[in-house]
Amino acid sequence: MSEVIELAKDLLSRQSITPLDEGCQPLMAEHLSKIGFNIESMVFHDTTNMWARRGTESPVFCFAGHTDVVPTGDLNRWHTPPFEPTIIDDYLHGRGAADMKGSLAAMVIATERFVAKHPDHKGSIAYLITSDEEGPFINGTPKVIETLEARDEKITWALVGEPSSTHKLGDVVKNGRRGSLTGNLTVNGIQGHVAYPHLAENPIHEASAALAELAQMHWDNGNEFFPPTSFQIANINGGTGASNVIPGELKVMFNFRYSTEVTAEELIKRVLNILDAHGLNYDIDWVFNGLPFLTGDGPLLEATKESIREVTGYDTDPQTTGGTSDGRFIAPTGAQVIELGPVNATIHKVNECVSTADLEQLALCYERILEKLLC
Amino acid sequence: MSEVIELAKDLLSRQSITPLDEGCQPLMAEHLSKIGFNIESMVFHDTTNMWARRGTESPVFCFAGHTDVVPTGDLNRWHTPPFEPTIIDDYLHGRGAADMKGSLAAMVIATERFVAKHPDHKGSIAYLITSDEEGPFINGTPKVIETLEARDEKITWALVGEPSSTHKLGDVVKNGRRGSLTGNLTVNGIQGHVAYPHLAENPIHEASAALAELAQMHWDNGNEFFPPTSFQIANINGGTGASNVIPGELKVMFNFRYSTEVTAEELIKRVLNILDAHGLNYDIDWVFNGLPFLTGDGPLLEATKESIREVTGYDTDPQTTGGTSDGRFIAPTGAQVIELGPVNATIHKVNECVSTADLEQLALCYERILEKLLC
Repeated sequence: MSEVIELAKDLLSRQSITPLDEGCQPLMAEHLSKIGFNIESMVFHDTTNMWARRGTESPVFCFAGHTDVVPTGDLNRWHTPPFEPTIIDDYLHGRGAADMKGSLAAMVIATERFVAKHPDHKGSIAYLITSDEEGPFINGTPKVIETLEARDEKITWALVGEPSSTHKLGDVVKNGRRGSLTGNLTVNGIQGHVAYPHLAENPIHEASAALAELAQMHWDNGNEFFPPTSFQIANINGGTGASNVIPGELKVMFNFRYSTEVTAEELIKRVLNILDAHGLNYDIDWVFNGLPFLTGDGPLLEATKESIREVTGYDTDPQTTGGTSDGRFIAPTGAQVIELGPVNATIHKVNECVSTADLEQLALCYERILEKLLC
Repeated sequence: MSEVIELAKDLLSRQSITPLDEGCQPLMAEHLSKIGFNIESMVFHDTTNMWARRGTESPVFCFAGHTDVVPTGDLNRWHTPPFEPTIIDDYLHGRGAADMKGSLAAMVIATERFVAKHPDHKGSIAYLITSDEEGPFINGTPKVIETLEARDEKITWALVGEPSSTHKLGDVVKNGRRGSLTGNLTVNGIQGHVAYPHLAENPIHEASAALAELAQMHWDNGNEFFPPTSFQIANINGGTGASNVIPGELKVMFNFRYSTEVTAEELIKRVLNILDAHGLNYDIDWVFNGLPFLTGDGPLLEATKESIREVTGYDTDPQTTGGTSDGRFIAPTGAQVIELGPVNATIHKVNECVSTADLEQLALCYERILEKLLC
């Protein structure tokens, strides 16, 4: 069994459901400290984070990722026990195989190989690893970044091991992510009996035209890297359940995924203008889930593209679609951020698995990227 | 203590929460059979009904009402035990005092007095009493009416004892009610992740313009007797609770209170036209809660108005506003229907009560109405 698969299996056998680390980071630290990394464990409340660094110089190349995994779901639907990593037909099965313990193993082995060949590489290699990526992401990467910023320690390039690939290894990398902004809207009316509507004020009626306008609004055109900004009402709830009561309030939760063509502040202003134009009596809370970021042409994207082409023989496709990742917390410091990891077809599902050959190739990609940037 | 209050207290001491009768109808029957009424008990499933009739000729004057009461609510908030009728400061307290055991007692005593004076009155006097007016109204008045219709037994005039008065006895009578029609709408979309809106179809977005149009629609102008038809969305629910999931369906429950200027069929057609015009994929169920009815100028309204004026000294105000009542099941047979009962300020609340003086006056009104119609 190869070193990559051996380390991946060791990580996969630990039940590190968010926010637990269950010894994954110490295992990685054991490998890294042997090759000259300085290890810092940063524990914030229930979350275990690791900041590891080899070298003191710039530029700083940082592998970023997480040791926590999502829950298993229905155990009866797993063909193998989720925390007993098993290889079947060249696929490594287990919770976290693709998201993202396989990537972590590939990073560590790639680093070992690189350091063995280039002990005097330029700049620094770092690891920013959390156990709270799948959870509330409060005490994980954001707190580590806060700590680094406070001591003016900067990441130049971050390579996040999130499973970016769709059909085959490296066919897609993420070179940015849309911003995410959630609005929690309460439209206030006056409760009453449906037989006496003149004594009540139906917030569903009051809000419906405003919601229709928001739903059909064109927010921007996107740009070369981002699709147009999208607005979606995720939840709407009003009413007592009875057919004869006009409800006193309506609750609406909506979410923007937005491009770099607009800012959260602009979106908020436009939403408020529409709500006000319809004369609504409302309260609204905003949740800033993440700013949009983009890593355009530059050393990191170039090194990633070339490495994938050299290892796999085909060109990667940089995309900014999809959900959020911890990259959104790293990018605001000025770092370039790319996500490159295995195929994401089985993530968060039962029978999560990853091709063992892909993990080997991923380790090769990671090693080449290190070489291109730090040699 | 007067006969009216005595009988009311006897009825109020029985815990006849819907659909229980707890001996109330037999108690009334005891009084009525003594003065020549033929009593029929009609039990349908869990509901006890009574059809009582004195005479075989037309016209048929019918007192209509119910022996069931709504639950007590929080017992700690009652100043007196709800099923131990108590007089405090000339008010009779107890669950059902105003809705509508006080009216039942007034009807029976008024009938006894009338029959004593006019044993050979013309036409017939009848009672249609149910124990399921506050409940699902399936096995109560509708089933009795069905039985009567099947044997071609017709009611000419029905006087329902519902508490119609607002400030003082008889200030308001109900001479009709709006129709009530409920729609349960499900708008179908395609569930998905908010980050991939092109793979989903948000039913909240699809529906919002249609709901806005329904909410601002002018359905009719009403008429002399009815306010304009009113449409109210009572409940709206969509979403999984998560901010990143586009829901697969939206559920909307709305209710029409409609005048005699439109029919339920017309309203349904207009709603479907709007939903179709917006291209929605939907399912809809309709609940016909009651047809509108109106008792215009005629012997029953005339007799009621005059009797109230003679007993109280002021004019009554015939209205068609407010909720539904069992009158809606009687009116479709061709009967004229009026509701006259005590002040409704405390109905369905804790510490329900009724003025003892009002009950005495109510008995006088009922007796005069009998005299005007059957002498």
